[in-house]
Amino acid sequence: MAVKTFEQYVASLRRLRPTVYMFGEKIENVVDNPRIRAGINATGATYELANDEKYKKLITTISPFTKEPINRFTLPPQSVEDLVMRVKVNRILGGYVGTCHQRCTGLDCLCTLSIVTYDIDKKYGTHYYDRFMDFLKYMQAHDLTGNASVTDVKGDRNLGPHEQPDKDMYLRVVEQTKEGIVVRGAKVHQTGSLSSHEIIVLPTRAMAKGDEDYALAFAIPSDTKNLIHVVGRNSMDTREIEGVDCGNIRYSKYCPTLIFDEVFVPWERVFMFRESEFAAEMVSRFSAFHRQSHGGCKSGKIDAMTGAALAMMEYNGTAKVGHHKEKVIDMIHIAETLYGCSLAASYEGKREASGTYFIDPILANASKIHEGKQMAEVTRIMVDIAGGYVADLPSDKDFDNPEIAELLKKYLKGATGVPVEKRIKMLRLVEKMAMESADTISDIHGGGSAAAHRLTIYRESDTNYKKNCAKRLAGIED
Amino acid sequence: MAVKTFEQYVASLRRLRPTVYMFGEKIENVVDNPRIRAGINATGATYELANDEKYKKLITTISPFTKEPINRFTLPPQSVEDLVMRVKVNRILGGYVGTCHQRCTGLDCLCTLSIVTYDIDKKYGTHYYDRFMDFLKYMQAHDLTGNASVTDVKGDRNLGPHEQPDKDMYLRVVEQTKEGIVVRGAKVHQTGSLSSHEIIVLPTRAMAKGDEDYALAFAIPSDTKNLIHVVGRNSMDTREIEGVDCGNIRYSKYCPTLIFDEVFVPWERVFMFRESEFAAEMVSRFSAFHRQSHGGCKSGKIDAMTGAALAMMEYNGTAKVGHHKEKVIDMIHIAETLYGCSLAASYEGKREASGTYFIDPILANASKIHEGKQMAEVTRIMVDIAGGYVADLPSDKDFDNPEIAELLKKYLKGATGVPVEKRIKMLRLVEKMAMESADTISDIHGGGSAAAHRLTIYRESDTNYKKNCAKRLAGIED
Amino acid sequence: MAVKTFEQYVASLRRLRPTVYMFGEKIENVVDNPRIRAGINATGATYELANDEKYKKLITTISPFTKEPINRFTLPPQSVEDLVMRVKVNRILGGYVGTCHQRCTGLDCLCTLSIVTYDIDKKYGTHYYDRFMDFLKYMQAHDLTGNASVTDVKGDRNLGPHEQPDKDMYLRVVEQTKEGIVVRGAKVHQTGSLSSHEIIVLPTRAMAKGDEDYALAFAIPSDTKNLIHVVGRNSMDTREIEGVDCGNIRYSKYCPTLIFDEVFVPWERVFMFRESEFAAEMVSRFSAFHRQSHGGCKSGKIDAMTGAALAMMEYNGTAKVGHHKEKVIDMIHIAETLYGCSLAASYEGKREASGTYFIDPILANASKIHEGKQMAEVTRIMVDIAGGYVADLPSDKDFDNPEIAELLKKYLKGATGVPVEKRIKMLRLVEKMAMESADTISDIHGGGSAAAHRLTIYRESDTNYKKNCAKRLAGIED
Amino acid sequence: MAVKTFEQYVASLRRLRPTVYMFGEKIENVVDNPRIRAGINATGATYELANDEKYKKLITTISPFTKEPINRFTLPPQSVEDLVMRVKVNRILGGYVGTCHQRCTGLDCLCTLSIVTYDIDKKYGTHYYDRFMDFLKYMQAHDLTGNASVTDVKGDRNLGPHEQPDKDMYLRVVEQTKEGIVVRGAKVHQTGSLSSHEIIVLPTRAMAKGDEDYALAFAIPSDTKNLIHVVGRNSMDTREIEGVDCGNIRYSKYCPTLIFDEVFVPWERVFMFRESEFAAEMVSRFSAFHRQSHGGCKSGKIDAMTGAALAMMEYNGTAKVGHHKEKVIDMIHIAETLYGCSLAASYEGKREASGTYFIDPILANASKIHEGKQMAEVTRIMVDIAGGYVADLPSDKDFDNPEIAELLKKYLKGATGVPVEKRIKMLRLVEKMAMESADTISDIHGGGSAAAHRLTIYRESDTNYKKNCAKRLAGIED
Repeated sequence: MAVKTFEQYVASLRRLRPTVYMFGEKIENVVDNPRIRAGINATGATYELANDEKYKKLITTISPFTKEPINRFTLPPQSVEDLVMRVKVNRILGGYVGTCHQRCTGLDCLCTLSIVTYDIDKKYGTHYYDRFMDFLKYMQAHDLTGNASVTDVKGDRNLGPHEQPDKDMYLRVVEQTKEGIVVRGAKVHQTGSLSSHEIIVLPTRAMAKGDEDYALAFAIPSDTKNLIHVVGRNSMDTREIEGVDCGNIRYSKYCPTLIFDEVFVPWERVFMFRESEFAAEMVSRFSAFHRQSHGGCKSGKIDAMTGAALAMMEYNGTAKVGHHKEKVIDMIHIAETLYGCSLAASYEGKREASGTYFIDPILANASKIHEGKQMAEVTRIMVDIAGGYVADLPSDKDFDNPEIAELLKKYLKGATGVPVEKRIKMLRLVEKMAMESADTISDIHGGGSAAAHRLTIYRESDTNYKKNCAKRLAGIED
Repeated sequence: MAVKTFEQYVASLRRLRPTVYMFGEKIENVVDNPRIRAGINATGATYELANDEKYKKLITTISPFTKEPINRFTLPPQSVEDLVMRVKVNRILGGYVGTCHQRCTGLDCLCTLSIVTYDIDKKYGTHYYDRFMDFLKYMQAHDLTGNASVTDVKGDRNLGPHEQPDKDMYLRVVEQTKEGIVVRGAKVHQTGSLSSHEIIVLPTRAMAKGDEDYALAFAIPSDTKNLIHVVGRNSMDTREIEGVDCGNIRYSKYCPTLIFDEVFVPWERVFMFRESEFAAEMVSRFSAFHRQSHGGCKSGKIDAMTGAALAMMEYNGTAKVGHHKEKVIDMIHIAETLYGCSLAASYEGKREASGTYFIDPILANASKIHEGKQMAEVTRIMVDIAGGYVADLPSDKDFDNPEIAELLKKYLKGATGVPVEKRIKMLRLVEKMAMESADTISDIHGGGSAAAHRLTIYRESDTNYKKNCAKRLAGIED
Repeated sequence: MAVKTFEQYVASLRRLRPTVYMFGEKIENVVDNPRIRAGINATGATYELANDEKYKKLITTISPFTKEPINRFTLPPQSVEDLVMRVKVNRILGGYVGTCHQRCTGLDCLCTLSIVTYDIDKKYGTHYYDRFMDFLKYMQAHDLTGNASVTDVKGDRNLGPHEQPDKDMYLRVVEQTKEGIVVRGAKVHQTGSLSSHEIIVLPTRAMAKGDEDYALAFAIPSDTKNLIHVVGRNSMDTREIEGVDCGNIRYSKYCPTLIFDEVFVPWERVFMFRESEFAAEMVSRFSAFHRQSHGGCKSGKIDAMTGAALAMMEYNGTAKVGHHKEKVIDMIHIAETLYGCSLAASYEGKREASGTYFIDPILANASKIHEGKQMAEVTRIMVDIAGGYVADLPSDKDFDNPEIAELLKKYLKGATGVPVEKRIKMLRLVEKMAMESADTISDIHGGGSAAAHRLTIYRESDTNYKKNCAKRLAGIED
Repeated sequence: MAVKTFEQYVASLRRLRPTVYMFGEKIENVVDNPRIRAGINATGATYELANDEKYKKLITTISPFTKEPINRFTLPPQSVEDLVMRVKVNRILGGYVGTCHQRCTGLDCLCTLSIVTYDIDKKYGTHYYDRFMDFLKYMQAHDLTGNASVTDVKGDRNLGPHEQPDKDMYLRVVEQTKEGIVVRGAKVHQTGSLSSHEIIVLPTRAMAKGDEDYALAFAIPSDTKNLIHVVGRNSMDTREIEGVDCGNIRYSKYCPTLIFDEVFVPWERVFMFRESEFAAEMVSRFSAFHRQSHGGCKSGKIDAMTGAALAMMEYNGTAKVGHHKEKVIDMIHIAETLYGCSLAASYEGKREASGTYFIDPILANASKIHEGKQMAEVTRIMVDIAGGYVADLPSDKDFDNPEIAELLKKYLKGATGVPVEKRIKMLRLVEKMAMESADTISDIHGGGSAAAHRLTIYRESDTNYKKNCAKRLAGIED
């Protein structure tokens, strides 16, 4: 059965045995660890909605490769419509989980590989594309989630991969055998690596001469030997562990550091090997797809944030305050800007040689630049509207303590007729969406830095055309 | 021949005899008045490019109504592709004329009427749609330009049309005969009214009970008796009259006040008559179409402005200055934001009952809100990059004065090897694009005020959906 | 001895026995609770620096009332110099603690009362000013910290105090005896209430007819009977409790909800009683002083944030990246804007009837409006520069776990030659300053909402003067 | 008599015989040329208000050098109060003339020279300071206006002065005799050069080895032989020439290009000669003073712009529209930000070796950065509020044309009871303040580019102090 249910998805993760550390301890049962489970639930929403009558048609389709129904999160786009659906599905999911659902990154890797393996083969007569297609069909057949392992630790930012004093600052091949390769290095900010069945590795940057050992792409199961997930700190992480004051009652996000401490990769899972001049294409395709994804999921998250602001206005009794309404309009405007540019990037997509469709990179990056700057503004507005209690709301445990529970409920009442519990719950959600670091910081750093997005729109723009427009109007002939 | 050439267009205008005043004088020869002619040339570009091998396919198409080749500026969109082409054609033209080409407003009226006349007929059994289709075919057959006569003078903004002390503050019917109606009032900011063959009148706002006399739509030739065009002042208007220091060597913009001093309209040209509840739909459809148009032409104008900035960097010797490049990226980003949102609005368009396609109003307005705020920023950046001479460049007449010409040319040199004439011409173009009032102020007021655009995205958004997203995540059940 | 040391301050708090709840439990030892202690340490810095040779002259002065050396945090300004020193001392402290030091609010209450009690007496012949001066001298003599108890819970924002269904939504008098009054209500966001010896209560808004019971000002010890401090949740609070991953190694902030569950106040501590028309002056004076304070401490916090960004550039190896430097300049510019407007507000201060100096409210509010919008931008920039590890840095416990410690240290290295520990510590500080809710949310809500600041600058501006400037230039005579 | 009246000022200009070209013609009677006269009137306002009972005390003072009453525009600040008065006087004048009054630049040169000549003498034993003081006393005794001749034409921006192919791209000495020196070059954007008695020349940038010939400072009468003023184009310049549609009924601005075609300067007027290492100090002092001046005059201009917006709201009938009020608040906030930072820069000023006071350069530049970005926003808002007629208001000549005058007056009416003439005049003023290039472009380029202001605040900031704040909090010891 190619489209898994939420339950089947969780059961499939339960069969994996990844090596995981968190807060100084080794974690054996990942799936039932409440901190990690909140992230798994978010990815699980992509399975849940695929089986929901209302969203089924949006999220599932027929694979042109396996000819079976599949979840769109396993399909590199084969048409403009597929590109557009990526954005629409992400927007729905963003509003549904109110955070990152974490499944887009793996898909963005599949999209990238489906184009670039083909291009490498064409130049070198290699057979990466066939290998990749086998892997893709496997992902589709089992409805698996992939994790994008792209961002290296980078060491000294002044130096390229092979120039680093410690050669492992970018993931590299350290051994090569008949069966496969052994790699060493580390990838960071691995959103949802434990919610994923497969870790898909791409290079994080363009590679220069001398960097051949670093020009690698491959995929391995998330519980491969010597692969270590270290779940770092997020600002509100202990609440999920304690099961109190979570804000978002179901979903959250975590982003481990992933250490490849001499990990073996069989040849059939190697999709690029030392073709260093294709590293740049890998990363630029991936980034472009990922920025397109963000235009969907982040506008969806703003839907939830806008809804929280509107609910707080209702609960506080400020629903008719003019400047609050103006601020809500600002939130809507930002969401639609992200969404509009990302949609346009999709509609303007073009077919690549392999048959996969690629978005317009200028418009995709235009969307991401807004995200990097404006999500912080959306957050600020939501907090402004919600009120100061976002900072210091008493704990649910206090509301359960009979010595003060009634006093707290008395004094936290808002608009007449609104149960105090609603106001408290919504304030807690606002706190979560505003102050939880894993997701808010991805607004800034997800899909590369703002500087990279800016450089991309400059590089991709036809500046000569623009100059010629001006020269003609000024009457200048060259 | 349904697709006119530039020359045929100018010749056709020459046959009209409109009543025109400018700077205190009556103008008899409109077409050869250099101030007005610069505007006519801009509209003329829509004819010119329709006959240009490179752009022909973009700008012309086959009319589904007349089955003949037509200029797209006479076609209400009959498909998503037609909607998208509106934006793309406008972007090309914006870069081509570096100002407003003035022909979109008439088309936006045609688009509007092709939807709303059908809707009125459906409710009232009237025959506006057929009348309108006759008019449309006439426009197509002769490749005519229409002018959108929408914005009334409004008098006291606190009062509705029928509440005004002077009843003519909104255009209204003052007499009704068997042959037609007589109307009185005035419309302002009539961009290109003298570059147009036809004046197409729509109401400027929703109408309340009591406002029936004001609920009118119709079309009349631009030289109809008792119709008076008063061409107002623009900031650099005398330069075109003197033929010196124009900056943009071919194109400009003007926006008369149009006084309907008891003007007769025959019934076959009346497209709405006292159906006041449809006034709101008229204006909201028109505004949405017009905001979509702006997303194209203004991003095209930014192309020319960006090109001017890049050329100035070259001519000044600052092509490698880092912060200049960052500023150019800001310009590009703004252009792509306008364009992306407007494109998305088009791709997401839907078919209306009459068969015309209508854009997504949220995305179209999202584009316009950026225009209203960010075009001023684009201008500021262009001036920042170009340098202080935008403020006070000596006149071409000084460069022609032998007493000082050589001294001026000596001292106005820029980067080594760049002829001083290029630098002077480009500075003059920058001045034109930055300081010419007719076009820059339409960034703010064209297509209605920012407040109207903001209200629209709020009204059209599904705020309940957003609230429900948040409530579900917070665990609130109603 | 009127100027306490840090140790004397802590010892003095140890003698208090406040009623405190946190996370569902009653807290008996407040001073040694690590969560609260981090806040006490921040306030303690005001004592520490008063005994530091470098800052002594800045922070201490001679009281014109007691003629003894005092800490400036007990002195209502008696000169323009005193006003200016408020801002300068706060800037130093902001950089020194990297968060809110929490002692300004009490001083802002003293400043307010030193003006308004005098004004009330003048109108009503009451003796509040003398009572207040006794209280002030007591504060000075013992170098005590006060807490500003201003913000009521407010209930339904649509309704005034006496219109609320529950009459206790604003703090009010419920009983009056010969000895004093009994009050009921709750005050929220009580920054540093447990770091304070005295709780100083002012009304939170202007009062209308019918609101007399709510027009109260008084002071009581922070451990008064029936006064309950409920310490709410902040985003990173458990880290201090666990003593790990704190980021800021010494200082933090907490903001309890304070419930006055029928609290007795003796007459000698009552500074306003039912003079409802003075409530507006109380709150507007307090807000203005508090907004001035923010201009100092928040620019000081930006100093620390800018320093963190610069250190991260050094540790990451991006010290020479052009766009990073531009972003640092943005941070500096924002700091200086807050500081400059707040300083100007101080220098333009004027003497009030009682002898206390009051700042220029327009300039003080101009500073605060920038804070409300731009601190979020400063935070965004700092995170942008620091890198993605702000989101998900492994715990110090992981760095202590021998199974993975060396791997983590290997892979978290940055620029050549920088010890990895420095990079880790600085990333943790950045996380703290960016994602800790208590302090970041005070950027938005501290000193009232942005809407209030905006209204203030409008109300205080001479709009007629401005209109007359324009009319004269336009040649309009009235 | 040391304080001239407006009439005496105009009479004194009438005695000069400068060489002037404008729009291709030589101008003989400068004072009565309406284009130039509008600028002279603006400078004249500094004389007018010095004799106005209301402002006399603000604008005049006693010279510590001549011991006579002088206009503050001839006084280098000798105290913090003098620094503060510079800002306050400029604010008043900005609102009074609604444009640039053009007299600050000369004063900013005097301020600069009063510091730097002293410093040069100290190093080299030269006698520039005495020479300068003689010149200063002459300026004070006759209440003269100076013009800052700073900005060179610069040629190729990639190259320093002595590296240019044409050596005259920066003004330089070409001959040296016993009587004095002969200089060649050109200075641009010479605001008010024909409203000035004296031209005061400073270098425009730091000078490197090899640039000695360019390291010059001196002063000469504005009608010196071989000194040519070329008045360039401003966007609305012909209106003043025609005397119609001026908007601002009295005042305007013009900025000639000034060509020094081998001009003789006697030694007693030379204030720096080849001491190239002092060029940087000259320009940085001048810029800092000039940026401080802008903080005053531009906030004053915003007062007039805000007043125009408020008047338009009244005349249009939108005085109670909520978003209009919010926009006015934005305008006020920007004005106060410029003013506040500039005031703070003044109050924090320090005495230099010569006795002149110098402002805090960080705060002065912080003000200017806001101006460079936010004046465009103020303009945008004013236009947004005023309405679309800013773009295309019929000419006063049309209102005088009996064929259409009554129709125009009928249709341009606004709010009930407001004479149509008021609305028309105010719209015209808005157009002037928004679209007149000479003044609006000085918002961006006056006092150097934004990049220069940004660099200054970075360079002047103590970044080590900031880093140390962060390191201490993070627990990092070096």
